Amino acid sequence: MNSSVPYLLAVLGEGVVPPSTMVCHADDLGLVRGDGVFEATRVVTAQDGTSRIDRLEEHLSRFARSIAGVDGPTPDMDSWNHLIEDAARNWRTPGEATLKLVYTNGREIVPGSPRGFLTISPLSETHKEEREGIDVLCLSRGVTSESYADAPWLLGGVKTLSYAVNVAALRYARSQGADDVIFTSTEGYLLEGPTSGLVVEAADGLWTTPTGATGILSSITVNTVFDAADDAGVKTSTRLMKRNEVLRTQGAWLLSSIRGVVPILTIDGHPAPHDDQMTHRLRVWAGFED
Amino acid sequence: MNSSVPYLLAVLGEGVVPPSTMVCHADDLGLVRGDGVFEATRVVTAQDGTSRIDRLEEHLSRFARSIAGVDGPTPDMDSWNHLIEDAARNWRTPGEATLKLVYTNGREIVPGSPRGFLTISPLSETHKEEREGIDVLCLSRGVTSESYADAPWLLGGVKTLSYAVNVAALRYARSQGADDVIFTSTEGYLLEGPTSGLVVEAADGLWTTPTGATGILSSITVNTVFDAADDAGVKTSTRLMKRNEVLRTQGAWLLSSIRGVVPILTIDGHPAPHDDQMTHRLRVWAGFED
Repeated sequence: MNSSVPYLLAVLGEGVVPPSTMVCHADDLGLVRGDGVFEATRVVTAQDGTSRIDRLEEHLSRFARSIAGVDGPTPDMDSWNHLIEDAARNWRTPGEATLKLVYTNGREIVPGSPRGFLTISPLSETHKEEREGIDVLCLSRGVTSESYADAPWLLGGVKTLSYAVNVAALRYARSQGADDVIFTSTEGYLLEGPTSGLVVEAADGLWTTPTGATGILSSITVNTVFDAADDAGVKTSTRLMKRNEVLRTQGAWLLSSIRGVVPILTIDGHPAPHDDQMTHRLRVWAGFED
Repeated sequence: MNSSVPYLLAVLGEGVVPPSTMVCHADDLGLVRGDGVFEATRVVTAQDGTSRIDRLEEHLSRFARSIAGVDGPTPDMDSWNHLIEDAARNWRTPGEATLKLVYTNGREIVPGSPRGFLTISPLSETHKEEREGIDVLCLSRGVTSESYADAPWLLGGVKTLSYAVNVAALRYARSQGADDVIFTSTEGYLLEGPTSGLVVEAADGLWTTPTGATGILSSITVNTVFDAADDAGVKTSTRLMKRNEVLRTQGAWLLSSIRGVVPILTIDGHPAPHDDQMTHRLRVWAGFED
């Protein structure tokens, strides 16, 4: 991707602006403290240039919860909705793209209001290739599976801008020849991917990992799939599971709003189970296949 | 502080620019992923407008180690040194100020080089008041005291821009009527403050907490004080300690480059020991008193 790639930028209170516009000051808390939050979902644009945005309402709800998690003011959802509509109308590139919403808690040295902006950019080639299947490494997140209970300052379930460990873990995995990561607790329980949720198919139905005390982000894609599975009579449950337990199940996937439903091919080099039929069902439920 | 407060901004490759200049794009990895690092140290400016910068060489060394920690390229230290000299020459406000250096890993959507800039801003009134003494809360960091061993992706000891938990912990402490935080491991060991290191005075000399497997940032102020203490014949050591053990010692302080040496008055509401004479010695060793 180079600088000629179309990329749309819109700033809250300003509207769509040239993508070369700088958006933040040197003392913005989002920049110098990672003190802000974000959301990302998929935009699908037809050949005629009209776009639909995947599960926008759920993403805006989680965005508002994340902003509350960093003690930000209640966001003006009308303004955000108008900005998103304006941006989607201006984004005419057919295909899949990522809509990212960003909120920061204002400035550190000079007083100022919170800042909000959004970008729309084409889906990366890497994400498209990874949809075929990925090799993952289990990497410790350093926390226990109960670390986030009664500890709101740890920002469990809040999608903050402080993702340095998430990107460092992905870089580490790639340096080892893998594609992605499943974070584990110090007890060896699987938690989530750096930008995805885990779903496993076992004899008694579909499993995912519990939110709450684990600090895991509530995955909109996993929730969507589980609602549809319930409707289809497939049992769903949350549980703490270890790697070797998952290797003995029928299938394992990492789910996210942009990349969709991705089968895990290997975990730490061990072949993972797979179920192509369930991959298809999960994709249909998630809105990634018809 | 309001927008008329003097505040200096300088950008790597550009020099000193107006502080109202925006410095980063909407897809800057430092902003949207917290994927970057920083350093902060004190600038002391005399009435004639000439400035000295505290322990710049040590801070630049740690800055370079942090950049390597997020897989950034080896920084051009000549450029940074020139930028800092230029900035210090242009900063003429007598008194104490904070020099902050910021590095980000470039951009996410559009390719681009890493970005670097610095700010100089006056010491906050809060920091000045806190020097008299602080009430602290112990808050769990969610990690064990050995979580960072052999886990470079957790970025232990790297001063990243992903500080959301640090600021959330400080906000939580203030909402409870306290001034600051000591993070604890899940086993109850004291680790460090969100922006400071811990020093305790016991019968056998001064203690601080170990870096390495704890993930603690190596504190330049603690290291400076410990070197001076060794020279003065005061024994120093690192150890894992629990709150109740510290409450039975002779004194406890949080040390940092900007705020200096701050006596802890209470921990979780329990009166902490104090030793005014040692406070003075620590301040002299740290360069905050003559």
